[in-house]
Amino acid sequence: MKKFINKPEEVVDEMIEGILLAHPNKIKSVREDDNKALVKKDSPSENKVAIVTGGGSGHLPLFLGYVGDGMLDGVAVGDIFASPSVQQILDVTKNVDGGKGVLYLYGNYGGDLMNFDMAAEMSKLENIEVESVVGTDDVASMPKGSEYNRRGVAGLFYLYKIAAAKAETGANLKQVKEITERVNHKVRTIGVAISPCVIPSVGKPNFEIEEESMEVGMGIHGEPGMYRKKLASADEVADSLTHLILEDLEVKENDDVSVLVNGLGSTPLQELYIVYRKIHKILSAKNINIYRSYVGEYATSMEMGGLSISIFKLDEELKKLLDEPFDTPFHKQFKEHPEE
Amino acid sequence: MKKFINKPEEVVDEMIEGILLAHPNKIKSVREDDNKALVKKDSPSENKVAIVTGGGSGHLPLFLGYVGDGMLDGVAVGDIFASPSVQQILDVTKNVDGGKGVLYLYGNYGGDLMNFDMAAEMSKLENIEVESVVGTDDVASMPKGSEYNRRGVAGLFYLYKIAAAKAETGANLKQVKEITERVNHKVRTIGVAISPCVIPSVGKPNFEIEEESMEVGMGIHGEPGMYRKKLASADEVADSLTHLILEDLEVKENDDVSVLVNGLGSTPLQELYIVYRKIHKILSAKNINIYRSYVGEYATSMEMGGLSISIFKLDEELKKLLDEPFDTPFHKQFKEHPEE
Repeated sequence: MKKFINKPEEVVDEMIEGILLAHPNKIKSVREDDNKALVKKDSPSENKVAIVTGGGSGHLPLFLGYVGDGMLDGVAVGDIFASPSVQQILDVTKNVDGGKGVLYLYGNYGGDLMNFDMAAEMSKLENIEVESVVGTDDVASMPKGSEYNRRGVAGLFYLYKIAAAKAETGANLKQVKEITERVNHKVRTIGVAISPCVIPSVGKPNFEIEEESMEVGMGIHGEPGMYRKKLASADEVADSLTHLILEDLEVKENDDVSVLVNGLGSTPLQELYIVYRKIHKILSAKNINIYRSYVGEYATSMEMGGLSISIFKLDEELKKLLDEPFDTPFHKQFKEHPEE
Repeated sequence: MKKFINKPEEVVDEMIEGILLAHPNKIKSVREDDNKALVKKDSPSENKVAIVTGGGSGHLPLFLGYVGDGMLDGVAVGDIFASPSVQQILDVTKNVDGGKGVLYLYGNYGGDLMNFDMAAEMSKLENIEVESVVGTDDVASMPKGSEYNRRGVAGLFYLYKIAAAKAETGANLKQVKEITERVNHKVRTIGVAISPCVIPSVGKPNFEIEEESMEVGMGIHGEPGMYRKKLASADEVADSLTHLILEDLEVKENDDVSVLVNGLGSTPLQELYIVYRKIHKILSAKNINIYRSYVGEYATSMEMGGLSISIFKLDEELKKLLDEPFDTPFHKQFKEHPEE
């Protein structure tokens, strides 16, 4: 295990401490016992629905890194690849609610579901209105027809972005929930892994993959994918993944989409852009318009090698909300129409 | 070689094509023969000195990724780890000059020096005023006393940021050059590598490093460092590197600095923050104030494993210029005082 860490059991606490020290004007910790419940520095925001997420650590910028202006209000994080506790979620909830209620928005994993649901029950006892939307964008994890049992992966970025922008308009909890569910219907992701990551407390790779191979559809915790085959060229990878998405998501000529090419951890930025280039060509050839694109690390798995592609089908309202600015420790976007 | 690429000889062209397709409203290509001379979409900017950089590919966001509002006006890029040509630099120069002259600002490498100097001569023949500043922030590459023969690495980010912000104030070429030289006197970087990268056309790692080892001071092309030893804990790495910088850069109690923790390619964000945490503690214990920090990938070496630390000693004018916003394809900063 070749990592810049101290004791494996302190990786998460020290990483969070580093983030708090590096971004003191953006994010703060709200618990005395640990620093795994974090909220925007100026929480609670009055007059808007608060958006809360959470999940295991090891996926930066997911989950912790999306707290910020125009994005999330709070986050509860667990240990590496482990769910946050009910109490951590509840503490975040109490600290972000400004009276308009809280949307829980997270990926579809068993532990997270159980703990967020319990925290929602407990929040109601404290007179905080809570609704939940669960992200299920990973095409590879369940076949068509079982879309809502799929895992949530990098496409969560789009759910966060739109939920937050809608909340900023002053929309009520029901409206924010509705549009976020609409986004979840319109986002699909599929990943490919070429090398594993090492959970620090385990000390060895979480899976093995032959030197010349790739696994299409692998999850961000190393969940088995759809098939393993010889590593193909960037163009072939882009082509296979894009078509797997297009078989699942109804996109037709003249539609507007947003594309996210996400690095899983150790894949260089150069390669992400080579893959983006091909996706752009494939969609352009079909007269599908890429309204706005994102290329970089949005949902990682520590040092896992690989990438994922997300496609988000847009409509006029979603385009407008996607254009709104945001400012988080990791990613930022200025207010600007991409076609200007 | 496990990479998402097509033909090795097309990596750079396809990567740039991907960037141009992903960021069409930010950056454009100005040559017919190739796309290695790139400028801001709205070039030339009238009424300001233009800042131009360049260097080899494989270091994203360096060099290409720093073109944007509040940052650079143009960039000429070479093949992987190779200098751009004189003609590419000249074409950038002609396309960015708005009449107030051009500052060439790049890292201290032989090929770049030769070609930028030649391009400067040729620009003068075209009546474009050109000055040059060469970044020399890598403490490990030459001993104290030979500071200006050092290599330029991640600290170039600070030179770009301040040069660009100063140019935005309407300063003339001499003033922009002077402040950029001042920044170069005040920035120090040192890196540590734990795993190599593979140049696509070569197909094998550019160096070897034992499973349990790290090399302190290695350059971003794999240039030999100061020493190789057993991989230490994150805290020990942060401690050694920070002290190597502080022995070289005069920083005293109550000084303000900016800190940049830069990932070399495959090192996860989590680990960069664990290292940042320790740097923060070391500097705080010395009553050195971190005015603003940056953590992420700023100057990479494809999939090299490792990181670098840069410290930039600030004064009042530099703090003000550092706070100015910028918007590039990779990194962005909103206008905001970090102590607010």
